[in-house]
Amino acid sequence: MLNFSFENPTKIHFGEQQIKEIQSEIPKNAKVLVTYGGGSIKKNGVYDQVKAALSEHTWFEFAGIEPNPSYQTCMKAVELVKEKQIDFILAVGGGSVVDGSKFIAAAAEFTGEPWDILANGAEVKSAVALGVVLTLPATGSESNTFSVVSNLETHDKLPFASEYVRPRFAVLDPAVTFSLPERQVTNGIVDAFVHTMEQYLTYDVGAKLQDRFAEGILMTLIEEGPKAFSEPENYQVRANIMWSATMALNGLIGAGVPQDWATHMIGHEMTAVYGLDHAQTLAIVLPRMMAEQKDTKRGKLLQYAERVLGLDITNEEAAIEHAIAATEAFFHSVKMPTRLSDYNLDDSVADKLVAQLERHGMTALGEREQVTLEKSRAILLASV
Amino acid sequence: MLNFSFENPTKIHFGEQQIKEIQSEIPKNAKVLVTYGGGSIKKNGVYDQVKAALSEHTWFEFAGIEPNPSYQTCMKAVELVKEKQIDFILAVGGGSVVDGSKFIAAAAEFTGEPWDILANGAEVKSAVALGVVLTLPATGSESNTFSVVSNLETHDKLPFASEYVRPRFAVLDPAVTFSLPERQVTNGIVDAFVHTMEQYLTYDVGAKLQDRFAEGILMTLIEEGPKAFSEPENYQVRANIMWSATMALNGLIGAGVPQDWATHMIGHEMTAVYGLDHAQTLAIVLPRMMAEQKDTKRGKLLQYAERVLGLDITNEEAAIEHAIAATEAFFHSVKMPTRLSDYNLDDSVADKLVAQLERHGMTALGEREQVTLEKSRAILLASV
Repeated sequence: MLNFSFENPTKIHFGEQQIKEIQSEIPKNAKVLVTYGGGSIKKNGVYDQVKAALSEHTWFEFAGIEPNPSYQTCMKAVELVKEKQIDFILAVGGGSVVDGSKFIAAAAEFTGEPWDILANGAEVKSAVALGVVLTLPATGSESNTFSVVSNLETHDKLPFASEYVRPRFAVLDPAVTFSLPERQVTNGIVDAFVHTMEQYLTYDVGAKLQDRFAEGILMTLIEEGPKAFSEPENYQVRANIMWSATMALNGLIGAGVPQDWATHMIGHEMTAVYGLDHAQTLAIVLPRMMAEQKDTKRGKLLQYAERVLGLDITNEEAAIEHAIAATEAFFHSVKMPTRLSDYNLDDSVADKLVAQLERHGMTALGEREQVTLEKSRAILLASV
Repeated sequence: MLNFSFENPTKIHFGEQQIKEIQSEIPKNAKVLVTYGGGSIKKNGVYDQVKAALSEHTWFEFAGIEPNPSYQTCMKAVELVKEKQIDFILAVGGGSVVDGSKFIAAAAEFTGEPWDILANGAEVKSAVALGVVLTLPATGSESNTFSVVSNLETHDKLPFASEYVRPRFAVLDPAVTFSLPERQVTNGIVDAFVHTMEQYLTYDVGAKLQDRFAEGILMTLIEEGPKAFSEPENYQVRANIMWSATMALNGLIGAGVPQDWATHMIGHEMTAVYGLDHAQTLAIVLPRMMAEQKDTKRGKLLQYAERVLGLDITNEEAAIEHAIAATEAFFHSVKMPTRLSDYNLDDSVADKLVAQLERHGMTALGEREQVTLEKSRAILLASV
């Protein structure tokens, strides 16, 4: 186990009818900005629940944070935060709304050009307080310090992290996910699965409990994921998926272990250039990453094959191939395509994305920095 | 999954040479009271590391918090806290020192008779800030809100809980546990194991991830526990045990599931009357609790048998018997006796402890409140 520091002070209210808890979680005298996306929360009852819970607060709203939240949209919200002297942001939505709201919270108190937070790693020294009502289990953003924001003009999709933007609280009501479009359910399950893999499928450092926890998340997603489609109003299925997605990226399973994230880095470029959903890119890249890195990841690939998938690992090569195929089959089981050609993309993708990776300095990715541009190219070519 | 609220803001610094982190975690202007136990920290180097880290702080010390910390000792520390106007308590030790320090922290700011916090559930409305340097992985007290304190005069051993006494930070350096006496290593492993069982071995509410996490802790303790004796200076073994003990009782695996704690309640009485170590009592009671409650716990007993112990569960009755025997064998593998007779106690224990349980209102214990005094008596008689 590697040395680590871990903290996660986000307070979670989990379960049916928990949205009312925001009333006591947000200071009474706070001026609140409710941020959300395309308006689905007005159809599924979440907006009304939030409105009822905020009946004693002064609040404003900012709609239109898009999937892959854009810098341009976020900066409009920053203007509103400053104009109305907002001191609490309540993000109501999925990972994109939360990520966008984190950037809004940081940018509103940033001295200088906020784009520097993303492009140049400028330090965030404070942020507007943030709370979350989560409507889409996927990114784990509801209790972590990470955010990814895209620039529509430059086609950059860039991350930042700061303890200041970690949500103070997050409300997770699995029942509000019943009405999600299938595509978003698919995306969420795959996103949580790949987050876990990025922290698990590296190399052994003797962190046995972290391994067991990661395996627990993977097994739960494999078992429960498909049921979200066959039994879409099964509350327990939704609850297990939702809690798994939070635990997949709240810092816990990544504490004390090496981390990979090469699949994410390549995937981000794919979204920035071709507009694929984040999780769609992960499902394309991960199986090819597993194959390309099978020697450096051998020990963990076999452990994954045996413990998570229940495979016989006597023949190591066969077990690894089987494990990769089973991973791809799992993605298919939750209605996720796994090939570039499923989106009418061909091998020209490779040159384009390798150039993007080079431009962003992503020339040595992964837990051992062994995923060179050449390997990224091979992974992309194998993904067609 | 049941509805739940979960938060755990304790910051963890885990690993070798992490004690120095307390320097930046305790406010520079704080007047610190370092609390500890019998003085082992002066032999294993921990005291010196703490002293070095506090070189820029004003600090005092209070030694002599005993195993099963006593109200009487804690109240002496409370006097010191008031006299020196302490505003940060640093507990350096195992669960007893931490539990005692939690009570000291609460009692020092309590209006009225502090014994009421334990005896009558009087509300804790504030407490002196608390940090921990953990030297014995066992109770999970380093990041939770619980404390158990004993009254030497009345033979009461009583718990309280308050968010105010949750440590702000905890330093966990597995290397400092190399020098622990075997008896304390044994106690810690068994304590963490039974904490997990109290939150796992109840009935199914569909909380699949919580189950997987609990099973991960149990498997890790079963695999690593015996190695703490065969390879006492294996850092990774100690690290996995230490992190398992924290995760066993930091609130996470108990969020959204029913909880039992009947074994603990009976065990507490055994400690109060006969002076057995806390974990010694748990190892005596748990196997008999599993047997006595095997019908109400059937589903989880079989899940435990299959997933944690790898047993064939085709014959359910045989599998359950086998699982109970394997649990007892695990305790033996970490050098823990499992019978009252191992401590020269006989069946007279039953009357005495049932009277204690009755006096404390413990007449319907467990996740379904089915452990009546009669059942507690049967469990104790079977434990001889």
